[in-house]
Amino acid sequence: MLPIKHQFHLPKDMIYLDGNSLGPLPVAALKQTAAVIQDQWGEHLITGWNRDGWMQQPGSLGNALAPIIGASNDTIMVGDTLSIKVFQAVSAALSLRPDRRVVLSDSGNFPTDLYMAEGLMSHINGDYELKIVDPEEVRDAIDESVAVVMLTHIDYRTGRMHDMQNITAAAHQAGAVMLWDLAHSAGAVVVDVEACGCEFAVGCTYKYLNAGPGAPAFIYARPDIADQVQPILSGWLGHDAPFAFEPQYRPGQQMERFRVGTPPVIQMAVLESALAVWQGISMHDVRQRSVELSELFIQLVEQRCPSLELVSPRNSAERGSQVSFAFENGYAAMQALIDRKVIGDFRQPNLMRFGFTPLYTDEHDVTQAVDVLADVIENRLWDNPIYLTVKAVT
Amino acid sequence: MLPIKHQFHLPKDMIYLDGNSLGPLPVAALKQTAAVIQDQWGEHLITGWNRDGWMQQPGSLGNALAPIIGASNDTIMVGDTLSIKVFQAVSAALSLRPDRRVVLSDSGNFPTDLYMAEGLMSHINGDYELKIVDPEEVRDAIDESVAVVMLTHIDYRTGRMHDMQNITAAAHQAGAVMLWDLAHSAGAVVVDVEACGCEFAVGCTYKYLNAGPGAPAFIYARPDIADQVQPILSGWLGHDAPFAFEPQYRPGQQMERFRVGTPPVIQMAVLESALAVWQGISMHDVRQRSVELSELFIQLVEQRCPSLELVSPRNSAERGSQVSFAFENGYAAMQALIDRKVIGDFRQPNLMRFGFTPLYTDEHDVTQAVDVLADVIENRLWDNPIYLTVKAVT
Repeated sequence: MLPIKHQFHLPKDMIYLDGNSLGPLPVAALKQTAAVIQDQWGEHLITGWNRDGWMQQPGSLGNALAPIIGASNDTIMVGDTLSIKVFQAVSAALSLRPDRRVVLSDSGNFPTDLYMAEGLMSHINGDYELKIVDPEEVRDAIDESVAVVMLTHIDYRTGRMHDMQNITAAAHQAGAVMLWDLAHSAGAVVVDVEACGCEFAVGCTYKYLNAGPGAPAFIYARPDIADQVQPILSGWLGHDAPFAFEPQYRPGQQMERFRVGTPPVIQMAVLESALAVWQGISMHDVRQRSVELSELFIQLVEQRCPSLELVSPRNSAERGSQVSFAFENGYAAMQALIDRKVIGDFRQPNLMRFGFTPLYTDEHDVTQAVDVLADVIENRLWDNPIYLTVKAVT
Repeated sequence: MLPIKHQFHLPKDMIYLDGNSLGPLPVAALKQTAAVIQDQWGEHLITGWNRDGWMQQPGSLGNALAPIIGASNDTIMVGDTLSIKVFQAVSAALSLRPDRRVVLSDSGNFPTDLYMAEGLMSHINGDYELKIVDPEEVRDAIDESVAVVMLTHIDYRTGRMHDMQNITAAAHQAGAVMLWDLAHSAGAVVVDVEACGCEFAVGCTYKYLNAGPGAPAFIYARPDIADQVQPILSGWLGHDAPFAFEPQYRPGQQMERFRVGTPPVIQMAVLESALAVWQGISMHDVRQRSVELSELFIQLVEQRCPSLELVSPRNSAERGSQVSFAFENGYAAMQALIDRKVIGDFRQPNLMRFGFTPLYTDEHDVTQAVDVLADVIENRLWDNPIYLTVKAVT
C-alpha cells in the first residue's frame, strides 16, 4: 500500500515536492553501493566484470525497468545520459526513413532533446529540418514529409501530457517513426510503450525512479526494428563480439547495439536499489494516488492563494504527476518556500512547480505544504532580497 | 615516497598487475561516496546541485586531473565514457579541417576508437575515409589529405608507446589536427599535452587513475581552438545558458561546450577521491619506478620462463607501463595465474599482459609474481581444462 515512506530516506521536517526533478535516496541504496565498492570492486577488482555481473547491468537493469513502462524483457538498454540516448534514438529513427528530412517536435519539449537533434542534424548527411510547433498543433503537423515525431510525453514546465496512443497512431498513419521521451513519465504515470507501438522511447532514472543524481538513462527500441538500426554511436560494447577486438564494427543483436562504452557500475548499483523498490508496485495505484494528491493540492492552493494561477491542465487525464502555478514573484516565493523546507522548484518565466510522488508523499504532506505556501503568499514572505540570489536546477 | 599502498584497498595475498585495466579502490573513496549519497543526496536532495557543487564537478575534476597530463586549468572536461569522448573529439577535429576527408589511425588503436570514428564518419556529411596503417608507418602516412591523426598513445596489447611530440609535429607540419587517446597513459607515463601541442586528448579514469569501474572519461581541447568547435553532441549542459532553457543551442565558452548531459555525481565522488591520491605525486617519480619494476619483471621472466616471448618493446623509452609476453597457452596460463592470486590479463591471440603501477606495486610484488608465473609455466599448471572457460575484460 502506498506510500512506502520507510523505503526512502526523507530529511526530517522536509516536505519534498521535487521528486519530478531528483528523487530521494532509497534506504537500501547506501548499503548496496558500499557492497559494490568494497566487496566487488575492492575485493574482486577486474574479475568483477564477469564475477559480479557488471557487464550485464545495462540489459538486466533494463529488464528491471521494463514493466514500469509496459515493455518486455530485452527491449531496454540502460546507460549514458538522456541527452546521449536522445541522440542515439534520433539518429536511429532517421535511418529508418532515409527518404524523409523532417524531425517534428514541439515547443514544450525539454531543450536538450531539441539541442541534441539540432547537433545531429547539422552534422549528418542530408538537408534536415527540425520543425517545432506548439504542442496542440503536433497532430495536425504530422504529414508525409515527417521522418520522425520526437516528443516529450509530459511537459517539464506545465505537466501537460500528450496522448501517446493517439499521436503515435497519427505518426504511423503518415509513415513517420515515433520517438517518446519519458523523462517525466517513467514511474509517474501509466505508460505502455508496447500498446502504443512507438519505435523508440528514452528516459532518465533520477526523477520518479529515484536512482540519484546523474543516474544512467535508458533507451527502448521496438523489437522488430532494433536490428535495422546502424548505430551512429558504435561503441565497442555494442559490437557483436566486443572481446574479439575486431578492427571493424559489427553491431550486436537487438538492444546490444545500443550499448556504447563501459557501464558506470557504481551508479548502476544505486539504480538497482532504486528499481527494487518498484517490485510489487502497480503503476495504476501510483497514478490513482498521484491524481488524488494533485487534485487536493490544486483545490487547496486555489482556495487559499488566489493570486496563483494554475497553468497545468485542469483535467487530470491531460496532466502528468506535477502541478505548476504562475505567480509574478514566483522565483522569490519558491526560495521562501524552500527556506521553510517545502521543496518545489521554479521555471522561467514565473512558474512554481510541484511534483507529486505517491511512493513517499501523502495527503498530510500536501496540506502542510499548502499551509506553508499560503503563509508565504499571504504574508508576502517572498518580498525579501535574500530570495533573489539562488539558482534552481531541473 | 612510492609506493603508497596504504592509500589503496588491496585484497589480501593478491598481487595485482592489472591496474592498466581497472585500478584498485582508493581507501578514501568509500567514505567519500557514502557522504555524497547520504549527506548530500540524502539530506540536500535537489539543492545539492548548487549547494554541494555537483554542477561544477566536470570542470573541477578536470582541473584536478590536469597536472597529471601536463594541462592547465580549464582545459579538461570530465564526463560520459571514453567512447563518447572519442566521438566528440573526432567530430570536433574534423570540423577544424572542413576541406580534408581522411582520419588516419593505426592498427594498434583500441577498437572502440576506430568503431566510434567509423560510426561518425559513415553518418556525417562528406565522403570520409578512415585510413588505418601499422603503428610504425603512421609518421610517413601523414600527408596533406589527412584531416585528423587519431592515435592511442600506448598500445593496449603490447604497451608500445608512440612519440607524442614527434608525431604531433608531423601532423601539424602537414596541416592535420592531432587527437591523442591517453587511456593507457594518464597516470602511467609522463604526458605533457601542452608541450606536444596537440589539439585534442581524451582518456579514461578507471585504469591508472583508479576511479572505479565505469568511471567518467575526460576530454582536453587546446584553449586556442576550443571555441571554434561546433559540438555534435550539443547537450543542454554545454549550452551557454543551460537554465535559460532557450529553444536553440548556443555553445558555452571554451570547455563548457564539451559537456553534454547531467554528470554522474556518485561516480564523480569516487573520481574525486581517486584524484586526491595524486596530490604531491610526481609523474617523473612514477615513471622512474614503473620502468624499474617493468625491467625487473622482464629480466626475471626471461630468465625463468624462456618459453614466453617478450612482445612489448625492449627499450623502455618506447614502452608504457605494461609488459606483454606471447605464450601459446597464454589464455589458460593466465587463468591458472589468476587462480593463484596473481592478476594480469589475456589478450588475443596469445598475449599475457601485466601492468605496473608504482602507487601500489613494489619489487617484492614483482619477484613474487614471477615465482608464481614460473611455477605455472614450468609445471604446466595451465594444462587443466578448468582454465579454458572464463572470459577476460579490458
